[in-house]
Amino acid sequence: MAVVPSLARAVCLVSGGMDSAVTLAEARAAGFATHALTVAYGQRHACELAAARRVARSLGAAEQRELAVDLSAFGGSALTGAGAIPKDRSDEAIAGGGVPASYVPARNTVLLALALAWAEVLGARDLYLGVNALDYSGYPDCRAEFLRAFESLAQLATAAGTEHGAHFRVHAPLLALSKKDIVLRAEALGVDLGLTHSCYDPLEAAGQVLACGRCDACRLRLKGFREAGRRDPVAYAEGTER
Amino acid sequence: MAVVPSLARAVCLVSGGMDSAVTLAEARAAGFATHALTVAYGQRHACELAAARRVARSLGAAEQRELAVDLSAFGGSALTGAGAIPKDRSDEAIAGGGVPASYVPARNTVLLALALAWAEVLGARDLYLGVNALDYSGYPDCRAEFLRAFESLAQLATAAGTEHGAHFRVHAPLLALSKKDIVLRAEALGVDLGLTHSCYDPLEAAGQVLACGRCDACRLRLKGFREAGRRDPVAYAEGTER
Repeated sequence: MAVVPSLARAVCLVSGGMDSAVTLAEARAAGFATHALTVAYGQRHACELAAARRVARSLGAAEQRELAVDLSAFGGSALTGAGAIPKDRSDEAIAGGGVPASYVPARNTVLLALALAWAEVLGARDLYLGVNALDYSGYPDCRAEFLRAFESLAQLATAAGTEHGAHFRVHAPLLALSKKDIVLRAEALGVDLGLTHSCYDPLEAAGQVLACGRCDACRLRLKGFREAGRRDPVAYAEGTER
Repeated sequence: MAVVPSLARAVCLVSGGMDSAVTLAEARAAGFATHALTVAYGQRHACELAAARRVARSLGAAEQRELAVDLSAFGGSALTGAGAIPKDRSDEAIAGGGVPASYVPARNTVLLALALAWAEVLGARDLYLGVNALDYSGYPDCRAEFLRAFESLAQLATAAGTEHGAHFRVHAPLLALSKKDIVLRAEALGVDLGLTHSCYDPLEAAGQVLACGRCDACRLRLKGFREAGRRDPVAYAEGTER
């Protein structure tokens, strides 16, 4: 297969959450034509997919594709239906308590593998992933070592790497940022965080999606906004402390 | 997530072809309870899926799961609908002619990532993949370096690798075998190759699936049977030279 290298394209994994939205904006700010890939992996919070579409549109992605891969067929995660979503955990428990129940087995490996497949077809060499090692220290596949290992694999796994010596890069511009930093970075890049969705366990009331305010994702997000001195524009369940 | 290590389980990628059938038999012969994973990645030859079910059943897999991942959404391969399936290529062209049109971008990376996700849930550490470096030298993701790189990645990518220090292994027992060796190995292991399907471009006539006899997969398979002094039990299109 002939692959025309094109430095201008990047494949960005866009989930609909705050982190991947800012990551997509970073890819655009770095000069890439962005190709947004949204993977429906069987997560319970399907309204993420609608958020992903809004985010890709608002940040001028060259295109957005959705791919269904039903990881819930394997079970093993609270995010895909096995077990309860943890609620009201302390900051310490979220940050340091080992691998959380919301961990989806090998999720980032699957996501990057799919991004790599598309990148090879597009002639893109740059993959963007919105992982964050600081707030999610319990996720093994959110660490720099994991990302470097994937780059090495990509080199060997593809016709592009093998025949053309192309160097694949996995960019994770948020890796070392706190949620506070991400809120401020969103502001600097003109990302409308009101379009994003982070909650693992949203409610629907009168046709409106409300974030629960109590799952790890909500708690981290709200803490980030508080520390940044900003108000989160998304709607939360009644009684949520902002 | 608590993962109970169980040395007795292996996840085996089973496509329905001859190579993955023999690989599944090797996993069983090595003493594993085999969990067969069949990925429908948008290949044109969907009768492979029926073959995969027959193979898993006949080789006593503990269970078989099918997962749909539509890689054809990305394009880029003759196997998923882009461009023509090459026909009547010489042995030399098949063996040494660079990356063939039937290469599916990053396919084995995607397959192994999915196998890893299931393995982590099952508490399995052993992945079996029926790749073969000899006959498919043009596929970058059929080389030992690629498999070792994936093992390194798996170690870093998973809660199992990180928390329990489990060592993931990617087994490719056919890596150095010729198709002739594989035919003979199938015989030794009691694999009924009549249940398998290899053709990239099968015909259907009177409700029967006929292998075309002319695509790379058919040519390699027929050559293997000829060299082994055996007759391929599957049905071929009229005029196929065996």
